[in-house]
Amino acid sequence: MPEQSSPLDLAEGDPFGPHNLPYGVFSTPGHPDDRRVGVRIGDHVLDAGAAAHALGSPYAGLLAQPSLTPLLAAGRTAWRDVRRALTAWLTVPGHRADIEPLLHPVDEVTLHLPYEVADYVDFYASEHHATNVGQIFRPDGDALTPNWKHLPIGYHGRSGTVVVSGTDVVRPSGQRKAPTDPAPVFGPSVKLDIEAEVGFVVGVPSAHGSPVALADFREHVFGLSLLNDWSARDLQAWEYVPLGPFLGKSFATSVSAWVTPLEALDAARTAPPARDVPLLPYLDDSRDEEPGGFDLRISVEINGQVVAEPPFASMYWTAAQQLAHMTVNGASLRTGDLYGSGTVSGPEPAQRGSLLELTWNGRDPLELPEGKRTFLEDGDTVTLTAWAPGPHGTRVGLGDVTGRIVTAP
Amino acid sequence: MPEQSSPLDLAEGDPFGPHNLPYGVFSTPGHPDDRRVGVRIGDHVLDAGAAAHALGSPYAGLLAQPSLTPLLAAGRTAWRDVRRALTAWLTVPGHRADIEPLLHPVDEVTLHLPYEVADYVDFYASEHHATNVGQIFRPDGDALTPNWKHLPIGYHGRSGTVVVSGTDVVRPSGQRKAPTDPAPVFGPSVKLDIEAEVGFVVGVPSAHGSPVALADFREHVFGLSLLNDWSARDLQAWEYVPLGPFLGKSFATSVSAWVTPLEALDAARTAPPARDVPLLPYLDDSRDEEPGGFDLRISVEINGQVVAEPPFASMYWTAAQQLAHMTVNGASLRTGDLYGSGTVSGPEPAQRGSLLELTWNGRDPLELPEGKRTFLEDGDTVTLTAWAPGPHGTRVGLGDVTGRIVTAP
Repeated sequence: MPEQSSPLDLAEGDPFGPHNLPYGVFSTPGHPDDRRVGVRIGDHVLDAGAAAHALGSPYAGLLAQPSLTPLLAAGRTAWRDVRRALTAWLTVPGHRADIEPLLHPVDEVTLHLPYEVADYVDFYASEHHATNVGQIFRPDGDALTPNWKHLPIGYHGRSGTVVVSGTDVVRPSGQRKAPTDPAPVFGPSVKLDIEAEVGFVVGVPSAHGSPVALADFREHVFGLSLLNDWSARDLQAWEYVPLGPFLGKSFATSVSAWVTPLEALDAARTAPPARDVPLLPYLDDSRDEEPGGFDLRISVEINGQVVAEPPFASMYWTAAQQLAHMTVNGASLRTGDLYGSGTVSGPEPAQRGSLLELTWNGRDPLELPEGKRTFLEDGDTVTLTAWAPGPHGTRVGLGDVTGRIVTAP
Repeated sequence: MPEQSSPLDLAEGDPFGPHNLPYGVFSTPGHPDDRRVGVRIGDHVLDAGAAAHALGSPYAGLLAQPSLTPLLAAGRTAWRDVRRALTAWLTVPGHRADIEPLLHPVDEVTLHLPYEVADYVDFYASEHHATNVGQIFRPDGDALTPNWKHLPIGYHGRSGTVVVSGTDVVRPSGQRKAPTDPAPVFGPSVKLDIEAEVGFVVGVPSAHGSPVALADFREHVFGLSLLNDWSARDLQAWEYVPLGPFLGKSFATSVSAWVTPLEALDAARTAPPARDVPLLPYLDDSRDEEPGGFDLRISVEINGQVVAEPPFASMYWTAAQQLAHMTVNGASLRTGDLYGSGTVSGPEPAQRGSLLELTWNGRDPLELPEGKRTFLEDGDTVTLTAWAPGPHGTRVGLGDVTGRIVTAP
């Protein structure tokens, strides 16, 4: 008789193999209030705290928790050691009997927002995106503002409306006013858009008053996940001068249920584009040993159809530069701070990470099987997926982020 | 022999009499880690949880806590009932023997940030302030942007750097670039400023996707306190186009240690200025029973010298309108959300709530006993104080917010 197959026997090239091991928080149908740290392996989730207990691991205190927050706060040495332990549990044959009963099919669990978001910041770090937006909204001026290549532009967003992948997004209502309208009108947004981004999750806090240097990026940032910064372009256009985006963004920001630790992405590090202007010392990464970029290949799907493939490697500003900038004034970091890269758009039209750019503000509709799209319609489902090069020719899969548009009440 | 005087025998007209009763969180020198909810009465702090226990009150569960958060979340009926109970404990002679031992001189305790700040939003609601800023920064354009009288402009700030009154403020460093500079320079801010504001504290959350109507303001907002939104004008000027203020604000925001419940301010409600343009229904407060403004008289002191007296009654947008706007797109509220009114400036030059306005961006220095001031110098201490009309001719004192500027590292 053939041996029964194990969930640990993965197909060759599985993007969620033991070289990946993203973290999340799950519950099972029988125990909806019992949230547990999970680690994804193939199409299964390992109950990490239960595994730590079963194997007598010293990391049970970090893993047998209802959220990732204790692990995030534990710091780089603990992150490395826990990852090593998990790798052993999932690959050493002698552990199989203990581990297999603690694996749940990912389709049979509920995934939750894996940590409490402290502050949420969103950047604007793709030169291609910023140039496109500048051309669309300020056709008579320079596409990039004068500060753009001197500092990574960012702003604070609403952390209380960061939601986990799979959460429906209610179409927001608000004020909009076309230049030709005599006064603003109120109603559901007619230009509901996405922004395909990557979100970085801070683990270790920093002291108030003490900037975080470029070189300390990996001491503070635990990992990353896909992020969709839903945007109501009509609300945003009317409100954003002079203090920036507010209601056009604050209704929802979706993140993946899975946080990929930076250690899983060592093979994906890549140099950012050449810098066009000299950078002030706190942002100058030209002598850094480790390249600051990440080679993440993102796909944007609307109702299952790929509409764009934005390359994260093309981002002008790196996550380390964003962290250094965000703290150079002495602002402190907290465990659970989340910062988005800004919309990822590459140089090619098919690499643009927003419908604003893909349709050039509605001028050039997308042709989808179910009809033309300028902006999102009720019932549309948007899914971001991504992968990165892993060790030895493998791929590291990032957790999807998906959301469906629900009619405004 | 004369009776010994009691801390409960307050001077006539004490602004912290039993008609006020703001809430805070304190610890005593002997027990620095034992944070407790306190209620201010005169120059003393009542240990509210200990009082509830001593008197067998059903509110011990809300008051015997290390933070105000449980009380904030409890809702309007609980807020009213707890306030009634406290009033009785502090005024009924039969309770004196139980209460007096639980009073601590306010000068002998440490006051803490009284709740965990969830999201922090800052508005821009004074027409006089916005007009002054517009004239200073955009002298060739209209002083107010076209949206200003149609919606209360706001943006998200950094909740992780909200600090309690008394916390030193380290002068922030960052990029600045004068129009005539060929490139930005880096260094400590040379235009460090204040913004005299009032902060509103959300108690009861709202559901994601459900706007909060104007009429529900008092169901969600617990109280208010003075707030100083420290601002580095040189950093802000270089960074803020197109996505708004970021590092120019995120280094520190100071709030009073005392949260004044809205119920203490019933006699201070006042109608906002007449509206110049018709408002969309969700912002139209013209038929509201309760006037939306608050008659708070603010003083700004630098090193003990009063430099301005901004009248909060002159604010164009009310706190209820700000709450309705902030949620009209479906954004949810959480317990501990804090939103600032925006700088309070009245129509007169001596009523301006920022040095930017008081000195007209440095053109007209203030004459202080210790010398001229355009913006803040290291060692300067800024204190905001305020009072409001209370019942029967009394005054309701707001807790001070103070901070001293410390040299950049």
